[in-house]
Parts: sequence; structure tokens; C-alpha cells
Amino acid sequence: MASVGVDSEVTRIMIGVNESSIKGYPHASISSKSAFEWTLNKIIRSNTSGFKLLFLHVQVPDEDGFDDVDSIYASPQDFRDANRKDKINGSHLLEYFVNRCHDIGVVCEAWVKRGDAKEVICHEVKRVKPDLLVVGNRGLGPFQRVFVGTVSEFCVKHCECPVVTIKRSAEETPHDPVDD
Amino acid sequence: MASVGVDSEVTRIMIGVNESSIKGYPHASISSKSAFEWTLNKIIRSNTSGFKLLFLHVQVPDEDGFDDVDSIYASPQDFRDANRKDKINGSHLLEYFVNRCHDIGVVCEAWVKRGDAKEVICHEVKRVKPDLLVVGNRGLGPFQRVFVGTVSEFCVKHCECPVVTIKRSAEETPHDPVDD
Repeated sequence: MASVGVDSEVTRIMIGVNESSIKGYPHASISSKSAFEWTLNKIIRSNTSGFKLLFLHVQVPDEDGFDDVDSIYASPQDFRDANRKDKINGSHLLEYFVNRCHDIGVVCEAWVKRGDAKEVICHEVKRVKPDLLVVGNRGLGPFQRVFVGTVSEFCVKHCECPVVTIKRSAEETPHDPVDD
Repeated sequence: MASVGVDSEVTRIMIGVNESSIKGYPHASISSKSAFEWTLNKIIRSNTSGFKLLFLHVQVPDEDGFDDVDSIYASPQDFRDANRKDKINGSHLLEYFVNRCHDIGVVCEAWVKRGDAKEVICHEVKRVKPDLLVVGNRGLGPFQRVFVGTVSEFCVKHCECPVVTIKRSAEETPHDPVDD
């Protein structure tokens, strides 16, 4: 039988993950979880030693100002506290994915970057050179997309590696589909 | 250890394949082969029993008229002969992929449809419901794309399943990158 790259290095899959946009729910977004579960169930399957997962969470500094509406900055320390809070949220998010991988026996790495999600993801793809990038997508219609932007569309166009976009299933979509 | 969908059905990956556009070379295009090899090496790896490959070749009837420039149609039989020739070409193409799968031990199916490639692929995705569609792409710049169209971009936007586009590597690109 011909070789199927059995002896080659593991397949490295980067997954872009973000926090839920639902207020007061500091966990992974529905579309991030969909992207992760799809990768496990459809690609990795039982071949846990053939893959390595790379989780990238991009924190958007002051995304829309809402988070800072009730914040009062009176000293440099206040800014440091805010930054620390952001960082803690990021690692909390990554902990979920890393723990799941650990339970299943899939090698992984996870890290947080700050900046514009789509730009940072493409930059990290260039740096880390994964075999595949998996990103979630809310599956919004064109009208809704105008307002929320689509990181996934940008990545498909600009990232220097194969990219697959995983939409949430219909039953996972919240009442307001812009929520995630 | 948690389950990773080990017991679930196989992952069904559809691969859109086409003939080389290089005149007098009736074999699979470079980008089709790239898409296929990527799927084997990066996704299926050693887990040959976990996947089923579905090869779809869409024959474009009279794509640009060039094929018919030297043909003379004098009777209904001439048209039947031309159609039979098209069909033979299509099955010859699929034979390459099916043989490779057979050698490796990956279950597969392959079929030919006629029509507009992008429309037919999306239609077949709707009908067959694969877990993933893999399509090749010549990796042309925006200027060149205007003239040759991109089936892959259409599929990414419109097909009802996750889609991944595999570009040819730089060393596989022929002298004229529009050739494939």
C-alpha cells in the first residue's frame, strides 16, 4: 500500500477562538465551540496523535467602548488593572479548550494576542504556518454582516494557509443571531 | 478519556476535480491533484478507515467553443460521438483518483455531472451533504481572476457545507499560471 504521509509530522490546525458576545457570559462563543467540535469530530476523529491544535485568541482592545462605559481611570494603576482583567478573561477562555484537548489526548498550544482579530490571525498564520486554519462564523445574512463584520471572510481571502469556516448549526443560534 | 466521535460514521469529504487546461493533456489539473494530496496527507493521514472520499467532476459542455473548432457535425451520430468522447474523458480523470484511493485503502465514490461547475458543485453538496468540500485553486492574482473566474470563491460563499480551498504550491505553478 502506498504511503499516506503516516510518518510525516503531525498536522497542525490553528483554531481562532473568541469570547461570547453575550453580556455577562465570559465563556467561549458558540461559533468558537462549533469550530472546535467540528475539528475534533470530523477531522481528528480517533487519530489523536496525528494532530496538534493551536488556539489563538485575539483580544480586541476597547472593541466598542461599552466595556469602559462604567470604568473610571484615575491612575496608571487603573489601566494596569483593566489590562490584567482582559488578560485573565483571555486565559480563562483558552483554559476551556486546553482542558478539553488534555482530556481527549490531543497535543495543543494556546496563546492570546491583542489587536484587530482578522489582522492578527493572518499575521499569526504567517508566523506559525499551520496546515489549516479553522474559524467559526455566526452564519449571518448579508444585511446583518454589514454591521458585525466577518473575520472569517477576511481570513479566507488573506491568510496564507487553507482556511475552513464553520457555521453554527441552526439549533445553536440564539434568539438574536448577532449574539454569539 | 472523552470520546472524539470514534464510533460515529466516517467523515465524508467531497473533492471537486477537473481536467488540466493544458491542451493535449487529458489528465487531472494540477490544482485538483493538490487538493487531493492535501486531503490525504494533512487530513486522512493514517486513518484510512475514518474517511470516505467523494470525487465530483463537472464537465462543462462546450466551455469556450475551442474544442469544437475542428469538429464537423453532419448527423445526430456526430453529436453522440462527441458526447461519448466527453464522457470517456471524464471517467478517465476519475479513474486516476479512484485507483489512488484503492491503493491506499480509502473508500471512495466518483461521478461525472455536466453543467456550470460552480452551480453543479453546490447542487451536489446540497444533495450529498458531505462534511467538507475540498476544491483546488490556481492561486491567481485578482487581475488574472477576472478572466478565468473562480469556482472556489463561489463554493466558499454558496455551498451548504464547510469548504476549504487548496492553492497550488509555487513550484507546481506552470510558466503561464492560467494553465492548470
